[in-house]
Amino acid sequence: MSVSYTLDINCDLGESYGAYQTMMNSDEAMMPLITSANIACGFHAGDPSVMRLTVERAIVHQVAIGAHPGLPDLQGFGRRNMEITPREAYDMVVYQIGALDAFVRASGGRLHHVKPHGALYNMAATNSKLAEAIAEAVYRVQPELYLYGLAGSELIRAAQRIGVRGVNEVFADRTYTSDGRLTPRSHEGALIERSEEALAQVIRMVKDGVVVSTDGTLVPITADTVCIHGDGTHALTFAQEIRRMLEAEGVALTAYEAR
Amino acid sequence: MSVSYTLDINCDLGESYGAYQTMMNSDEAMMPLITSANIACGFHAGDPSVMRLTVERAIVHQVAIGAHPGLPDLQGFGRRNMEITPREAYDMVVYQIGALDAFVRASGGRLHHVKPHGALYNMAATNSKLAEAIAEAVYRVQPELYLYGLAGSELIRAAQRIGVRGVNEVFADRTYTSDGRLTPRSHEGALIERSEEALAQVIRMVKDGVVVSTDGTLVPITADTVCIHGDGTHALTFAQEIRRMLEAEGVALTAYEAR
Amino acid sequence: MSVSYTLDINCDLGESYGAYQTMMNSDEAMMPLITSANIACGFHAGDPSVMRLTVERAIVHQVAIGAHPGLPDLQGFGRRNMEITPREAYDMVVYQIGALDAFVRASGGRLHHVKPHGALYNMAATNSKLAEAIAEAVYRVQPELYLYGLAGSELIRAAQRIGVRGVNEVFADRTYTSDGRLTPRSHEGALIERSEEALAQVIRMVKDGVVVSTDGTLVPITADTVCIHGDGTHALTFAQEIRRMLEAEGVALTAYEAR
Amino acid sequence: MSVSYTLDINCDLGESYGAYQTMMNSDEAMMPLITSANIACGFHAGDPSVMRLTVERAIVHQVAIGAHPGLPDLQGFGRRNMEITPREAYDMVVYQIGALDAFVRASGGRLHHVKPHGALYNMAATNSKLAEAIAEAVYRVQPELYLYGLAGSELIRAAQRIGVRGVNEVFADRTYTSDGRLTPRSHEGALIERSEEALAQVIRMVKDGVVVSTDGTLVPITADTVCIHGDGTHALTFAQEIRRMLEAEGVALTAYEAR
Repeated sequence: MSVSYTLDINCDLGESYGAYQTMMNSDEAMMPLITSANIACGFHAGDPSVMRLTVERAIVHQVAIGAHPGLPDLQGFGRRNMEITPREAYDMVVYQIGALDAFVRASGGRLHHVKPHGALYNMAATNSKLAEAIAEAVYRVQPELYLYGLAGSELIRAAQRIGVRGVNEVFADRTYTSDGRLTPRSHEGALIERSEEALAQVIRMVKDGVVVSTDGTLVPITADTVCIHGDGTHALTFAQEIRRMLEAEGVALTAYEAR
Repeated sequence: MSVSYTLDINCDLGESYGAYQTMMNSDEAMMPLITSANIACGFHAGDPSVMRLTVERAIVHQVAIGAHPGLPDLQGFGRRNMEITPREAYDMVVYQIGALDAFVRASGGRLHHVKPHGALYNMAATNSKLAEAIAEAVYRVQPELYLYGLAGSELIRAAQRIGVRGVNEVFADRTYTSDGRLTPRSHEGALIERSEEALAQVIRMVKDGVVVSTDGTLVPITADTVCIHGDGTHALTFAQEIRRMLEAEGVALTAYEAR
Repeated sequence: MSVSYTLDINCDLGESYGAYQTMMNSDEAMMPLITSANIACGFHAGDPSVMRLTVERAIVHQVAIGAHPGLPDLQGFGRRNMEITPREAYDMVVYQIGALDAFVRASGGRLHHVKPHGALYNMAATNSKLAEAIAEAVYRVQPELYLYGLAGSELIRAAQRIGVRGVNEVFADRTYTSDGRLTPRSHEGALIERSEEALAQVIRMVKDGVVVSTDGTLVPITADTVCIHGDGTHALTFAQEIRRMLEAEGVALTAYEAR
Repeated sequence: MSVSYTLDINCDLGESYGAYQTMMNSDEAMMPLITSANIACGFHAGDPSVMRLTVERAIVHQVAIGAHPGLPDLQGFGRRNMEITPREAYDMVVYQIGALDAFVRASGGRLHHVKPHGALYNMAATNSKLAEAIAEAVYRVQPELYLYGLAGSELIRAAQRIGVRGVNEVFADRTYTSDGRLTPRSHEGALIERSEEALAQVIRMVKDGVVVSTDGTLVPITADTVCIHGDGTHALTFAQEIRRMLEAEGVALTAYEAR
């Protein structure tokens, strides 16, 4: 008897804006290495022209396309928490999914998933009302879209309640606390610096369904998709390494599909 | 033998923004009087919450819903010409159609048409490259959408070339030059102040297919839809008058549908 | 021996934006009734043209001019809390003071004070780091500017530490808790509906230096300036009433000046 | 008898925005090579934090500081013409000068000049009404500020009429037409690719007061300041070369001061 493992590798792309095109080059290089792309929708990053170009590239590379809606905070790159109501969250997510989807349809593609960005993602991981509003936005626009969220978070639970298929996202280079949350970036030891450790953590999450928390306990975790970064000096190298390693371990790399 | 006439009455709505909700009340009152609504998409006016609310109202009132994309110029209300490329026009129109369409789908409705706003509308009336880019955006996102443009303008011609159904828009309260264009607002006599004159002009355009230009010549014009204003002190009164008059003249009022 | 009382009446003005000019009319009517104006600086409301016009009006009416900086959230009218750093608060306040001050200088006037708006005001009332950053911004741009803040709040304390003159602001139509804070708007009884009560509260604060809290205790409070609203149906009436009442009570109405 | 020549070398800096910080490194390297910096003011580029940092750097390097106001078009980097009124131009320039000046004052520096950016610069070069509005904005905020504009353009003429000191700007790497204008970028031969040619052109403009136009005629030109670019792969190298060359030719490099 043999067990087969599959994993989706997702990456945030299309985060250039106007004249600020510096990230586009690494976007191009990253495409062949990932299985799904979360494309910024113009609120925290991206603009209509960047969105079109990124969608076209994703289609060429047969990468599954996701909308990556964020808070309306271009200057803060959507990373600053804002006290928005669930109603506002619903509205801004519907808007951004629609905007991105139009480029996908215009290019003959099909939208695959939605993954909230930055502060919206983090708030939705713990705030069940925001999480439900986001899940409802996805459900109302297109109920068959996958909703990517932090593994085991409120967003995943809200997706289930609303009737949208949640996809558990894990991180290679972040450590976890014993309750299954990410160690906040402001804490020491939040980031895993060494590639080997990051890779080992991913393998463990995929094959054994556990992660070793910062206090040494084994925490059960579901790894449907792993997020890797598209920028930074080591992004490409790490992407290549994680692919090689996962393939060597017999993990099939493919965009997430419900089984 | 009897000839039957039909006319679509369209109005720009959903132009509130954030705390600036003053226009919403007249929006509500205008809905029962019109047959199609052009809803702002967040660039020149509107925001995700205003868009949702306006779409919901339009559905309740069975008013045909159109996306009303504009230039990215909230401060100028999309009325200041900007030197954008056709590519940029295409991108911003795709984006805005998609954003509005998502609210329509989320509310169980169906998007009916697209009408560019303000400076984008005016530039597209005379600039064939911009006109084609806009028509192509409509075609690529959803080819069965109608594209509203100034009667006989470059936008209508571009729609035909691209394969989108153009809808000729006329104005009740604007005068026309002998080449079938609107008299620029900066010229004297651009506006028709008296309701009776405006109403008579509409009837003439619908029934006889002509308009009397500012120099007295008869200019052929196709009137598929007439634009009325949603704001201003006399907007509601005029909307009621034009409905009454058109119905008295035997003109059926209904959202535009290709025959 | 006679005691003399003075009070500053301030109001938030210049909150129109672009085509959204509906508030300007009440601005004009409010000017003769107040002694100082807090003018929006383009982040949460206002735009360069509205700022110029509002400054010119304030000068004509000899109303003391204040910069009214807010969070960069036009859609939310600066009322949604954002997790900004003290450094970001400093930067956005310096920027907005400067922008408003340029119009004041261009019109031959003199900037009198700074009052943070909305969520920035509220966060600065309890967050000492943000409060200090704002006070430092004022100090560095022009140390003789007054800094308006919630009476007795962290912002007033920070002003003192930094070396800027804090001005204690009270509210006529809001109730206070026994620790001297405003009852949050989300709580019942946060607002004082009846004019007579609001007026009585102001008189008590000015003459006796106390306010009756929601649980009936007397709380000491310093009333250097009272904030009245510029919009709403009763704004003008209330402004006239409060002026009449204060003058009848022998309170001199004048823009705040350190004594 | 000996003639002494002086020249100002200016560069547009502070054009990062939010997370888009990629240009900041070259900014740092460019500072020691220039004599005056035009700092973006948040409309076409820059944000309050970038402005503060750039002002601080300029002060450290004793570089003269200029406000670099642009059109409100972040996505288009202020390079797309917009049909604004002179009144709007005046308002947006006053606003942006003030915002930048506040950082300069907060850092103990002194604002030296104003140079419009991109499309605003180009429109002001030929549109005398816009040019006057900009000159008036400078005059009203601080009449002793220098106003940098295209050598011999409408902006320079407007400055003289209004009573502001215009500073004639020349370009090293752009060719000129026989009427003294820049060859439009859309034309062939608009750019001078070879460094030696660019350097020779600058020397000729500074020492002889002439430039050889694209059709070979000698056109008189006043060179008070030369603009060099802060980005691009060769920016630093070219800046070093032009300094070396000018110094070798006995041209004193110093921020512009009226003599």
